[in-house]
Amino acid sequence: MSLLVMKFGGTSVANIDRIHRAAKRVGLEVANGHDVIVIVSAMSGETNKLVGWVQETSPLYDAREYDAVTSSGENVTAGLMALRLQEMDIPARSWQGWQVPLNTTSAHGTARIEAIPTDNITRKFGEGMKVAVVAGFQGISPEGRVTTLGRGGSDTTAVAFAAAFDAIRCDIYTDVDGVYTTDPRICDKARKLDRIAFEEMLELASLGAKVLQTRSVELAMRYKVRLRVLSSFEEASETAGTLVCDEEDIMESNVVAGVAFSRDEAKMTLVSVADKPGIAAAIFGPLSEAGVNVDMIVQNISEDGRTDMTFSCPNDQVLRAEKAMNDAKARGDFAFADLVVDQGVAKVSVVGIGMRSHAGVAAQMFKALADEGINIKVITTSEIKISVLIDRKYMELAVQALHDTFGLGEELGRV
Amino acid sequence: MSLLVMKFGGTSVANIDRIHRAAKRVGLEVANGHDVIVIVSAMSGETNKLVGWVQETSPLYDAREYDAVTSSGENVTAGLMALRLQEMDIPARSWQGWQVPLNTTSAHGTARIEAIPTDNITRKFGEGMKVAVVAGFQGISPEGRVTTLGRGGSDTTAVAFAAAFDAIRCDIYTDVDGVYTTDPRICDKARKLDRIAFEEMLELASLGAKVLQTRSVELAMRYKVRLRVLSSFEEASETAGTLVCDEEDIMESNVVAGVAFSRDEAKMTLVSVADKPGIAAAIFGPLSEAGVNVDMIVQNISEDGRTDMTFSCPNDQVLRAEKAMNDAKARGDFAFADLVVDQGVAKVSVVGIGMRSHAGVAAQMFKALADEGINIKVITTSEIKISVLIDRKYMELAVQALHDTFGLGEELGRV
Repeated sequence: MSLLVMKFGGTSVANIDRIHRAAKRVGLEVANGHDVIVIVSAMSGETNKLVGWVQETSPLYDAREYDAVTSSGENVTAGLMALRLQEMDIPARSWQGWQVPLNTTSAHGTARIEAIPTDNITRKFGEGMKVAVVAGFQGISPEGRVTTLGRGGSDTTAVAFAAAFDAIRCDIYTDVDGVYTTDPRICDKARKLDRIAFEEMLELASLGAKVLQTRSVELAMRYKVRLRVLSSFEEASETAGTLVCDEEDIMESNVVAGVAFSRDEAKMTLVSVADKPGIAAAIFGPLSEAGVNVDMIVQNISEDGRTDMTFSCPNDQVLRAEKAMNDAKARGDFAFADLVVDQGVAKVSVVGIGMRSHAGVAAQMFKALADEGINIKVITTSEIKISVLIDRKYMELAVQALHDTFGLGEELGRV
Repeated sequence: MSLLVMKFGGTSVANIDRIHRAAKRVGLEVANGHDVIVIVSAMSGETNKLVGWVQETSPLYDAREYDAVTSSGENVTAGLMALRLQEMDIPARSWQGWQVPLNTTSAHGTARIEAIPTDNITRKFGEGMKVAVVAGFQGISPEGRVTTLGRGGSDTTAVAFAAAFDAIRCDIYTDVDGVYTTDPRICDKARKLDRIAFEEMLELASLGAKVLQTRSVELAMRYKVRLRVLSSFEEASETAGTLVCDEEDIMESNVVAGVAFSRDEAKMTLVSVADKPGIAAAIFGPLSEAGVNVDMIVQNISEDGRTDMTFSCPNDQVLRAEKAMNDAKARGDFAFADLVVDQGVAKVSVVGIGMRSHAGVAAQMFKALADEGINIKVITTSEIKISVLIDRKYMELAVQALHDTFGLGEELGRV
């Protein structure tokens, strides 16, 4: 008997009608001969409401109580989904995290999964149950308290179950129909990808393509869980959605898989800092402590023993970053002549595993931008990604130009 | 260290502001030197919403899933209450039913409490916790599934905790400020009782004074739990509310404690049934099977071996009762000449433990009604209660007359 994991996000179970529609999808897979583990989120808006109540009650809340409160929405949808499946004559039951049990660390609010013993659910499948509906996002700590896995944690729950139960696939039903070469709202030639490699998906996820939680992709990559992203609002079909898989499963491949972007970036430059061992640690230690998520870092060529240090961070962290730097200067940690802030920048990246074996991607990227008269302010590269910081007003133009130059709008992509 | 149980109903925790007010009450008792176990209901309206979703999803629902869904509201208020207490620097934590564990039978939807092991919570009190906030209404079955105790079950949870932990008192906070001699909306001389005996409260509760769930009063009587009903919307005071207690704790006592009534009654008479052994069983067996809650039963004097059998039931069960009787007649179980239905009646009762040692209560009651020209249709009596069925249009008049004749509006009542 092959086992399939299906995960439905908040918009896919937003009300009774949508729960019924999702149950119908599950019914199709049961009819296809699968045993199914369904992972459900809370109805959309529900978790935000609960988080709001917690914050209103106690601004510096005890994370254990936060978890006890915010995990309740998933219990509701799990029970309702099981009831609906029973109405369709499909033997089903709901499982709360502590009932599985989904064992996690005690890091409340951001707990990590430690183990998912499979015996309880496997025994029920053996007794004729066809669908186990599991409340996503939640687990149980060694102390017996309810834990949660952090926002979007239901994706991680789904992948972890797929790994633990050796599922043939993990289908993530959401409100988009797959992963695109870029955001269709920015570039009308954007095309849905049939397949994408784990590594590419990771880069795209962390760049802001909010289709899948980054942790869930990491976990899928580690355990080789075939992950399919698809819409719960479209007709079921064999080729629906995007399969996130091992790169070996992608037969033909564009060099570049997609163009990602991030609008709300800021660029900060510390002018004339001493170029000596330990200076980077002296700068980025305090930034990290202040909760600034530094992304790109560029150090200029040194001149007379001094250099300029440029970094980028999200726009809304600029004040924190400035304070951290000025405090460090006041403490005498290091000196700088000036701190220049540019809050009008955006980041554009091209991502693709093909880059590893294909030279010239960077040159082609820079030429395409130059042809449009777009100036590059900062560049960083990784094995499968090249990112540039540019003026925000050129962002859409840059995305379209890169999408064109790498032929992402053309049908012959990946199969 | 003395332990107090405090229970807050749905209207007392209806929103964040009310949860804060309830927490303040708890804080006062902690300042008074008590360890406290707080039992919370779901925010008012929340459980009804969840029940509605269950019924919409599956009209003939699996009670196990019903319980999994409908118990979630209490988890939310328990967590929020614990958070609020922590904000007030009071060491507190929430407990879900399975965490205590509150062990129940497997009768989902109407589970009965089997045991409440006290070690987990007692150990936490030993470690400095001052308040245990427990989600009411829910428990765990021997199979490890979530159970619920039936509507109003949080009262029962509270009394069971008070019994298990040998609490000095169980305070039930609700939206009324105590138990009244009768409904103030019917009789403006109605007066709050300072004390009422368990037996009286039981009669009043089952007569429709919806202050306390009947099961919780039964449980309190069995374990001698001193139960106080009071409003969460009034200032705290030593004499607030009504204490439901053993009759020995009531020093001085009116003969009659209160006047209860029930508006939606129907009277049915089977005319000319055979007066022979087994006839009552033949009539009331089918009624019971049809789900008719027969209340009062009167059998007329026999004449020529035939008699009339009169009984009362809630108005909305008349159709069911008629069908059950006609079906029984058609089956040949028994014969009757006619079935007369009177849907325009009400039941009025006087209740008081003093009746046991005080003759003449019935006579005084009947005289008061006669003085107002009110005809009595049916009479039943128990050790501490006399009930009459009268025309519904005289109900308010009857309640007022009885309230007057037994001096219930006078200040010197019970102390």
